[in-house]
Amino acid sequence: MNNKTFLETGIAYLELVRKHKPIIHHLTNSVTINDCANCVLALGGSPIMADEEEEIEDIVSIASCLVLNIGTLTKRTLASMVAAGKAAHKRAIPIVLDPVGAGASQFRTKAVQLLLQEVKPSVLRGNLSEIRCIAGLNVQTRGVDASTEDAMGDLEQEKSLARALATRLSCVVAITGAIDIVSDGIITVTISNGRARLASVTGTGCMSTSLVGTFCSVGDDLLVSTVMGIMCMGIAGELGEMVCPHRGLGSFHQSLIDQISLLDAQTLLSRGNINVQ
Amino acid sequence: MNNKTFLETGIAYLELVRKHKPIIHHLTNSVTINDCANCVLALGGSPIMADEEEEIEDIVSIASCLVLNIGTLTKRTLASMVAAGKAAHKRAIPIVLDPVGAGASQFRTKAVQLLLQEVKPSVLRGNLSEIRCIAGLNVQTRGVDASTEDAMGDLEQEKSLARALATRLSCVVAITGAIDIVSDGIITVTISNGRARLASVTGTGCMSTSLVGTFCSVGDDLLVSTVMGIMCMGIAGELGEMVCPHRGLGSFHQSLIDQISLLDAQTLLSRGNINVQ
Amino acid sequence: MNNKTFLETGIAYLELVRKHKPIIHHLTNSVTINDCANCVLALGGSPIMADEEEEIEDIVSIASCLVLNIGTLTKRTLASMVAAGKAAHKRAIPIVLDPVGAGASQFRTKAVQLLLQEVKPSVLRGNLSEIRCIAGLNVQTRGVDASTEDAMGDLEQEKSLARALATRLSCVVAITGAIDIVSDGIITVTISNGRARLASVTGTGCMSTSLVGTFCSVGDDLLVSTVMGIMCMGIAGELGEMVCPHRGLGSFHQSLIDQISLLDAQTLLSRGNINVQ
Repeated sequence: MNNKTFLETGIAYLELVRKHKPIIHHLTNSVTINDCANCVLALGGSPIMADEEEEIEDIVSIASCLVLNIGTLTKRTLASMVAAGKAAHKRAIPIVLDPVGAGASQFRTKAVQLLLQEVKPSVLRGNLSEIRCIAGLNVQTRGVDASTEDAMGDLEQEKSLARALATRLSCVVAITGAIDIVSDGIITVTISNGRARLASVTGTGCMSTSLVGTFCSVGDDLLVSTVMGIMCMGIAGELGEMVCPHRGLGSFHQSLIDQISLLDAQTLLSRGNINVQ
Repeated sequence: MNNKTFLETGIAYLELVRKHKPIIHHLTNSVTINDCANCVLALGGSPIMADEEEEIEDIVSIASCLVLNIGTLTKRTLASMVAAGKAAHKRAIPIVLDPVGAGASQFRTKAVQLLLQEVKPSVLRGNLSEIRCIAGLNVQTRGVDASTEDAMGDLEQEKSLARALATRLSCVVAITGAIDIVSDGIITVTISNGRARLASVTGTGCMSTSLVGTFCSVGDDLLVSTVMGIMCMGIAGELGEMVCPHRGLGSFHQSLIDQISLLDAQTLLSRGNINVQ
Repeated sequence: MNNKTFLETGIAYLELVRKHKPIIHHLTNSVTINDCANCVLALGGSPIMADEEEEIEDIVSIASCLVLNIGTLTKRTLASMVAAGKAAHKRAIPIVLDPVGAGASQFRTKAVQLLLQEVKPSVLRGNLSEIRCIAGLNVQTRGVDASTEDAMGDLEQEKSLARALATRLSCVVAITGAIDIVSDGIITVTISNGRARLASVTGTGCMSTSLVGTFCSVGDDLLVSTVMGIMCMGIAGELGEMVCPHRGLGSFHQSLIDQISLLDAQTLLSRGNINVQ
């Protein structure tokens, strides 16, 4: 696919989201859970947040995608995530994993390893520190935020990393940063949308992941879905900054949801800045 | 009571809320907990969120109403809700139950049955799917959001359902949707306020329930209080849409809290669209 | 220090926050967790929220300050807080405790006593009811909100209370209210910034505490850091009210984060209204 047909495929997915209102089951963190639910609704999906192990199978059975986000993981919710992942496999629905803070603690690093083994996600989306940690590389973590090294990354090296990890894990791998990289091991896509300011609002990474999950629920091509979720968040950041250039981070935060809810095919075609290789 | 005296009674309750700032104890979900607290404050009440079983009795003892919302229920919080309900009965304060997602999992359906038996809520507020599930009718669930059947409901049938369930459970039953129905088994009120867009922001149902709880804390007539809570949310939706017609869902979300905090007797009298039968 | 050099010291801390982006580890409540994270980011810090006991030591080891907030405490998170406090002592990073609702239940009152003994916080910030409870005085609690007595407090008495408690606990004590009081037992500072409306948005106390923690992470003088955190919240309230005088509480809430993100030395110098004694 060239850039344009890739984009057009993704835009068709947006129409499907709005038509079918797919249910996106989240096991996510308590910091950004409201934003995750609202960005799924803004895109046209229907979020459900449920992490009690006893109801996991039932909830997975009505969902079209499972999103796992370890931002405020506990032992209890880790067990629920494993159960949810297994139920999702039985149902053959896609699983998107956000390894928030992998590398910041042994507990998180091991939890991600467990989820990769037991759950085998369809898509993995993290920042450079998190993805490097998962790949077994040295990491200087900055907690849950991108570290300085993220900003200094070498693009070609990062593309190789995404490609290799995608092949090894048999899933789509996304490394988000100033330029986002998404690879399924064969095709690698870079996305040059977004604004630095997105890093100053908590949960914009989590929201990207939730948007990715929403696209994955309707489209067969998970590479396209992953690119679309991340690109939509980036474009929302660009438009949000245009709307309130002199206002602060509270207004910017709110306008992200505004802009996601107002996205249309025309905007995505004209602003989407991707490169399919 | 005719429509006008019904409304005037409810408006007097709003004055009482602002005068006494009643404490509303919530055991609620982690998705919309901030919005629930802020809408109670916006109306003039004082929210307290506490679900550790060990402190439940103490917190109930300083509260004027108990709100139970099962949106992200766990086994731990279910036990706390039962304890809270029993403490609320001892103190004779009203209990409002929001059965979020009843029918979406066996766990939730059984939890609601347990709460109805052990806690005997004073008010039950849900969407059509949830209320049909509780009534033992067939349900095609859409997770925590209203299902398509909700939009196609037959108003007279729904009124009968609310009336019958209210009689059976000896509580006020509210079915919220395009037209809201509230019944205590004898009197049935329909509310024609609100906007479709309210369903595109997570937690507007939960917020309605919290507003109902706030009104219940000051007024003897729980039917009036329930109508007021739901009607105020609907009117906030109408005014919120007027303020930002071309803006997105983030702005609309924020303006709901704005409008609740700005409600006055004049606005409620002129916009309140209820029918008491 | 006189008022001006005190302020100038604090303003230098703000520059340090923006330069070093310190990691602020929170164990906090589920109601205001998103606002706490966003206000730390708005000031220039990097929040991390983690309360699983198994990862506490690892997370504390990358943090520059620990914030403990008992707003929705459970037995599980209390144990994690004790572990976090001990780890913070080993690392010699400051600990800020927000005793939300102390006095509202035996569980909270005892939890605060336990934390004071086992964790020995560097800074304690609460409203008058909470601080009176901790000091062993009679309290008429209003749950988690300030009680009426808070508004009627006698300023000189409150100063003595803060001074005495700071000496007894060997920490900085802040009593926030219409006029805020901060004391380390020797120097006592009053802050006359803020607006009554701040009490109508949930979490403005929690946000103050998170801002205090962010300043404490960079400045040696914890008295200055505590005053700065509380003063910044007050000034954000003043500026937020100026921006949207006729709008409701949702807009005011959002503008608090806006104003924190826009704070600069000039604004702090001209609006900061403190009295160092």
